[in-house]
Amino acid sequence: MNCSAQEIYTLLRHYDKILLTAHVSPDGDAIGSLLALWHWLQLQGKKAVMVIDDDIDDRYDFLDGLQYINKPDQVETDDSWLTVVLDATGLGRIGQVESLVRGKVLNIDHHISNEHFAQWEYVRTDCAATGEILTYLFDLWHSEWNTAMADALYTAIATDCGFFKFNNTTGHTLRMAAILVDHGARPDFISEHLDARSLEKLKALSKVLEHLELFDDGRISCLSYTPEVLKITGEHTGMYMDYARNVKGSEVAFTVKYVSDKETRVSLRSKGMDVNAVAAVFGGGGHVRAAGCTLDKPLDEAKKLIVKEIEKRL
Amino acid sequence: MNCSAQEIYTLLRHYDKILLTAHVSPDGDAIGSLLALWHWLQLQGKKAVMVIDDDIDDRYDFLDGLQYINKPDQVETDDSWLTVVLDATGLGRIGQVESLVRGKVLNIDHHISNEHFAQWEYVRTDCAATGEILTYLFDLWHSEWNTAMADALYTAIATDCGFFKFNNTTGHTLRMAAILVDHGARPDFISEHLDARSLEKLKALSKVLEHLELFDDGRISCLSYTPEVLKITGEHTGMYMDYARNVKGSEVAFTVKYVSDKETRVSLRSKGMDVNAVAAVFGGGGHVRAAGCTLDKPLDEAKKLIVKEIEKRL
Repeated sequence: MNCSAQEIYTLLRHYDKILLTAHVSPDGDAIGSLLALWHWLQLQGKKAVMVIDDDIDDRYDFLDGLQYINKPDQVETDDSWLTVVLDATGLGRIGQVESLVRGKVLNIDHHISNEHFAQWEYVRTDCAATGEILTYLFDLWHSEWNTAMADALYTAIATDCGFFKFNNTTGHTLRMAAILVDHGARPDFISEHLDARSLEKLKALSKVLEHLELFDDGRISCLSYTPEVLKITGEHTGMYMDYARNVKGSEVAFTVKYVSDKETRVSLRSKGMDVNAVAAVFGGGGHVRAAGCTLDKPLDEAKKLIVKEIEKRL
Repeated sequence: MNCSAQEIYTLLRHYDKILLTAHVSPDGDAIGSLLALWHWLQLQGKKAVMVIDDDIDDRYDFLDGLQYINKPDQVETDDSWLTVVLDATGLGRIGQVESLVRGKVLNIDHHISNEHFAQWEYVRTDCAATGEILTYLFDLWHSEWNTAMADALYTAIATDCGFFKFNNTTGHTLRMAAILVDHGARPDFISEHLDARSLEKLKALSKVLEHLELFDDGRISCLSYTPEVLKITGEHTGMYMDYARNVKGSEVAFTVKYVSDKETRVSLRSKGMDVNAVAAVFGGGGHVRAAGCTLDKPLDEAKKLIVKEIEKRL
């Protein structure tokens, strides 16, 4: 961190043309932070342009201002523009937007892996979300608020801390969320939209749960993505892992995904046991509580081998 | 409200024998509030006895002190005991515990339907949970805290406001939750336990979702509890309604439950439309957004009739 909260205020007041961006594959924190800062700059009478090099998931459709987010080829800049990079650790995370960065850069981020690349940066790794940092700043600056800003930042914070369920939820996280509700954020409106799922996704969930199995007296849970299941779910299966993790009594959860008759992709999650060690046996890796590997084995055989390695360590 | 926060402190300090109770069918707020006040009284060196006239759902097993909650027949009192009734609107809500109420009563509650029955009461209908009130009190009293109290009250608040998703979530709710995390509450530990579901329940969910249908271009969603589905889910099907409500684009959700070949039970939920009017057509009733009725028709026929009545009003 090389500038203060007050210096950021001065900086944003100083520039008249400001490019706002966030990381590719934008999540609720990236989108919510982007929109909130854009709304705030509108209130200051600034020309601010939002750009993200990716499609925005339609689950965020309810957020006010979303239609003003551009793709990189819709925007032109020169070196008189300030670029604000939100919720991204480096210029490598903003895709083609990098070619629009011609002037100086301000980076506001909360990731521990931040690359400290910007002229000015405000990196708070003690915050659960970039939205938490922006709330802190707006509050400190005694800013004007509107409902759009408050909803966007509540979305940003809530999605990054799993609606105050993850262990990154601190007293500060909750106090910043409180400020947002005071300023008109609508938790019910936001959560109704975020929790909405298509009929297809719910039918896919039904199919996935059919293939949920337990091993070792329920201490190990497993989801199998057979070709038949993948036909319904599509390739994006990340959201189902939580159902395996949440099985009562499960200490380690894993998924096996069909790649071919001789190749199976494995993802592992644990509540404490070292699954990195399990993945390493098969040439994979990751972290203690989250790891992955690929086995040159058919799905059923891969599943048995993984169960055996987990059982050794439980 | 006929006494102040400070008077409650004086009252609890004054009595040496204190009976703590909460409503039957205890939820997270009832149990969490009960345990937290019990832990606090332990810290004060008081003899406090917890009693609830009901079984405690095993999803709360992770809360410290749960094993000290008694059934009414395990407890004896006399008129020197103070009874503290938590999260209950009247003595009619505490079941057989009523027979143990021999002395004076203090009621701490947040329900708008409170019957104002106690000698002393602290009823705060602006709070989302009784746990929110207790957090406020302990904080005001500059109390000692332990992790057990903090976890119990975070559970109380989070379960009553749907993890800060419901419209009863205020800035105050979030600020009280912040105080709890400051004092050691563990959102990840708590949510992992609350979200845990048995394999049987997940398999039942899979079966229920198989029977999810949409009507009227997706504006109406319906879950059918056929005899085949009920065999797997059991009679307690309330928890599945949210899946019908959360279907993207759905404005009215309803369930049809098989009672007999000539009788079907219907539950309706809406995001605005008057479903009470729909239920009334078939002799049922409820509220604008939540209503129910029973039709002397087979399940499939009942479903069609309900869809027709909803379509008229959408």
